[in-house]
Amino acid sequence: MQNVVLTDLEVAEKMADAARQATLPFFRQPTLETENKLQGGFDPVTEADRAAERVMRDILAQWRPDDGILGEEYGAIAGQTGRTWVLDPIDGTRGFVSGTPTWGVLIALGDDSGPFLGVIDQPYIGERFVGHGDSAFSAGPMGRTALATRKTAALKDAVLFTTFPEVGSDIEGRAFRAVSEQVQLTRYGMDCYAYALLAAGQIDLVIEAGLKAYDIQAPIAVIQAAGGIVTDWQGRPAHQGGRVLAAANPDIHAAALDLLRHF
Amino acid sequence: MQNVVLTDLEVAEKMADAARQATLPFFRQPTLETENKLQGGFDPVTEADRAAERVMRDILAQWRPDDGILGEEYGAIAGQTGRTWVLDPIDGTRGFVSGTPTWGVLIALGDDSGPFLGVIDQPYIGERFVGHGDSAFSAGPMGRTALATRKTAALKDAVLFTTFPEVGSDIEGRAFRAVSEQVQLTRYGMDCYAYALLAAGQIDLVIEAGLKAYDIQAPIAVIQAAGGIVTDWQGRPAHQGGRVLAAANPDIHAAALDLLRHF
Repeated sequence: MQNVVLTDLEVAEKMADAARQATLPFFRQPTLETENKLQGGFDPVTEADRAAERVMRDILAQWRPDDGILGEEYGAIAGQTGRTWVLDPIDGTRGFVSGTPTWGVLIALGDDSGPFLGVIDQPYIGERFVGHGDSAFSAGPMGRTALATRKTAALKDAVLFTTFPEVGSDIEGRAFRAVSEQVQLTRYGMDCYAYALLAAGQIDLVIEAGLKAYDIQAPIAVIQAAGGIVTDWQGRPAHQGGRVLAAANPDIHAAALDLLRHF
Repeated sequence: MQNVVLTDLEVAEKMADAARQATLPFFRQPTLETENKLQGGFDPVTEADRAAERVMRDILAQWRPDDGILGEEYGAIAGQTGRTWVLDPIDGTRGFVSGTPTWGVLIALGDDSGPFLGVIDQPYIGERFVGHGDSAFSAGPMGRTALATRKTAALKDAVLFTTFPEVGSDIEGRAFRAVSEQVQLTRYGMDCYAYALLAAGQIDLVIEAGLKAYDIQAPIAVIQAAGGIVTDWQGRPAHQGGRVLAAANPDIHAAALDLLRHF
């Protein structure tokens, strides 16, 4: 029946396109607060999350039926290829509910050794960050651009992002501040968009804790393809989540890791 | 010579259009970091700031030559009308240099009693928030929408934003946390975009300290036109800057003020 063949990247972009259409009707709707109360528990971000994951799974059912799926909302489906699509339909739900264009649709494809294709899509801005192997690009308001991370070598020159100043547990917060106190600038609140900025050469470090696999696999693929490095706080693979250090290059990664690994 | 007459709103939008064109070439340029070092001190955000203020002043010279101007980069010019245009060509310079689409071009028009017209423009997203008298609208990726603030009455249901978790001095930080500890959700890092989200009915409170007049006059006009209230931490006019409390409605304003006024 099906004569068209799509590449993995084409499948991923088709999924991201569909997720944009599924999520945007739920974003920034001023009446939702009222409807929520009237309809007894209607939760726009949950509805958007589920709608987006469903349309992405539909595309996989059509184009990659033999691959596995791990999604935030609808769990895991084992595949027969050793490859798994890892989906977070709305990463940054607190950003979503407060109207900030910092949430994203995360799509990754990988195997046991980690993700090799990733998409971070911000539907409201209409901006997409893609990494595939060692090729990385963004497409957004200012057109299509190759992504390349920065060369910053010293913490004193670095820009660090995280989502919450409270970063995880007390000890994780202390670890974060050990790095934060050394850098030029620390900023907050960007959700998954911070990883996109790192891949785009705008910032140098992202440190987070308590992540799930579906929170980090797409960022890993995008950042690695752009020249950066993502590990846990001991320098080990981070694609199962947990404590994450994303860095623009090996020098700044080593400098931050030297501080984090003691926690 | 000049037969066309522009309204104040048309002049303000013409200025915002010109500022978009002036700032965007300096935003997200991955080569600027290198050029900075090569050219000895070239600072993209300062260049963008100045370029944007110059084009806005050129428009005022043509269309409103008798009004006063207060701008961040080129100081004050007294007028003959009792009206002053208050300009911050790039509010949120730390957001600008780290690539976040949270900075904005701020344009206000007011008199001694405060601003009555305001524009918050985010060039990268292509999004504009306008308040004029009691009319407020946004125009952006999802089209044009009337702005109206939320009805949230209790702090326990409120979403609070500020830019830096450190908020001003130690005592100002304590004041902020007195409110933050009572609300449903606190988020950071949005620069002037937080005020736009408040006007758009997405969040309930913004608390900041150490502001200048040009940081807050445009947000005041936009938020008031959308139904909100902006004062200092004693409930007095805030259009000269300092400590600012922006609130979606009188109830939530009073609830936050009850905590802030003791500091």
